[in-house]
Amino acid sequence: MTYLEKLKRAQEQHHSWLCIGLDPQPERLPLPAFAWDEPILPFNKALIDATHDLVCAYKPNLGFYLQWGAAGIIALERTIAYIPRHIPIILDCKTGDIGHTQAAWARGLLDLWQVDAVTVNPYVGAAAVLPMIGARPDKAVYLLARTSNPGGSPFQGDLRDPNSLSAAVIRHSQTWQVQGALGYVVGATHPAELAAARRLAPTASFLIPGVGAQGGDLAAAVAYGPDAVAGPVINASRSVIYASAQADFAVAARAAALALRDAINRQRANGQ
Amino acid sequence: MTYLEKLKRAQEQHHSWLCIGLDPQPERLPLPAFAWDEPILPFNKALIDATHDLVCAYKPNLGFYLQWGAAGIIALERTIAYIPRHIPIILDCKTGDIGHTQAAWARGLLDLWQVDAVTVNPYVGAAAVLPMIGARPDKAVYLLARTSNPGGSPFQGDLRDPNSLSAAVIRHSQTWQVQGALGYVVGATHPAELAAARRLAPTASFLIPGVGAQGGDLAAAVAYGPDAVAGPVINASRSVIYASAQADFAVAARAAALALRDAINRQRANGQ
Repeated sequence: MTYLEKLKRAQEQHHSWLCIGLDPQPERLPLPAFAWDEPILPFNKALIDATHDLVCAYKPNLGFYLQWGAAGIIALERTIAYIPRHIPIILDCKTGDIGHTQAAWARGLLDLWQVDAVTVNPYVGAAAVLPMIGARPDKAVYLLARTSNPGGSPFQGDLRDPNSLSAAVIRHSQTWQVQGALGYVVGATHPAELAAARRLAPTASFLIPGVGAQGGDLAAAVAYGPDAVAGPVINASRSVIYASAQADFAVAARAAALALRDAINRQRANGQ
Repeated sequence: MTYLEKLKRAQEQHHSWLCIGLDPQPERLPLPAFAWDEPILPFNKALIDATHDLVCAYKPNLGFYLQWGAAGIIALERTIAYIPRHIPIILDCKTGDIGHTQAAWARGLLDLWQVDAVTVNPYVGAAAVLPMIGARPDKAVYLLARTSNPGGSPFQGDLRDPNSLSAAVIRHSQTWQVQGALGYVVGATHPAELAAARRLAPTASFLIPGVGAQGGDLAAAVAYGPDAVAGPVINASRSVIYASAQADFAVAARAAALALRDAINRQRANGQ
């Protein structure tokens, strides 16, 4: 089964384009976590238990685990193992090294941990992508095109400008010979550029961050997100997993996830 | 003590601008490693024992540890702890996430592991650098400017061209307000661009990969590498640590490191 087929099945089964970012932050963990010696895994398990039927994917970000060193990576491994197998896992690491180094990243993340997709930074060119999905038909790379932060423009430019770096990344990378799925990260905080990205890559999967705490445009994400096979992966992290800092954090996370999933689905209905 | 002062001291004490990349690859480990249940740490310890008086820094690359999952990260933590404290450690991770995520990376790498410097990818802009060294005067970031791989040009362009991305990265980033040291990664495989990078950043530290297995230009690295305080960090990985695949691997690594350190020093003498 290809990555896009797996994604599409999860999207249909849970009637959801919502992805939840599992990003544990020590200063934001809910109160009950302070009773746990190693809080990351039980925090994540409670979130997964509460939301697994509402999502099309989970996206843990490597940095939030590395902040605890090896202990955090152990919790990440166990979190990955705990996620039901039919739900795609996108490991957000924004790795972008060359050839043999990137092949090592791929062995760890895609082969050993068996995550379904990773985020990749295009700065070094095709060398960052080919060792990942050049010969892995069941895996995906989401290449950074236009990130959701306000300060990205000096280098990425405006995706609507054909001379911008972000447009060049999409154009160039579509010529790379890959067996896996090559998708793009395009922030919902730049709605007009989402439309431009869809024109440049009519069939590619989009991972769309920025609709939660960052206040991105849900209508644009729904309008320009769907690709030839599946819907977009619309990610929210903080607005869901830190919906409450009290003992009801998992219940509150479910309520926030349900509200966002349904808001996405209402946009889908409006567009039809 | 600032990062550059620590680097300069190690360079003077060991009369060396050589940095060794500690990049364990399963298919290249020497024969004795197969007798060890967990080979990474004893492999690295043998290399550090054999070369610590010949280097100005060590540079472990995160990807080569993550390929073993959490077990690799445990070996990385122990490797970092084993390196003598007076030798700077540059963690090569090419991380490049935004704000609060990059702050988490910084907590793990710079605060918990206490490495001296990290490599950072500039694609997302200042948000990738400020959480690292905005308020850490004793730490450094080496920002990717021109990577050593042949395929980097489509996006990075030619650093001699003022309109290139790599030149823009150096120009822009020098306006960022940082308390730590902001240096640049410029591959020795592009010698003319090294000269251009030095003109754009007259006082910044350079991390120069590509002089070993990739065949970069040592004379250019020595000519344009030194900054206002210290010499460049000239990195070799595979040509040193895999100098032999037999029981004499550590002895062979020392011989390769000594030869490269002395070749660098001969270039320094020629230039005076």
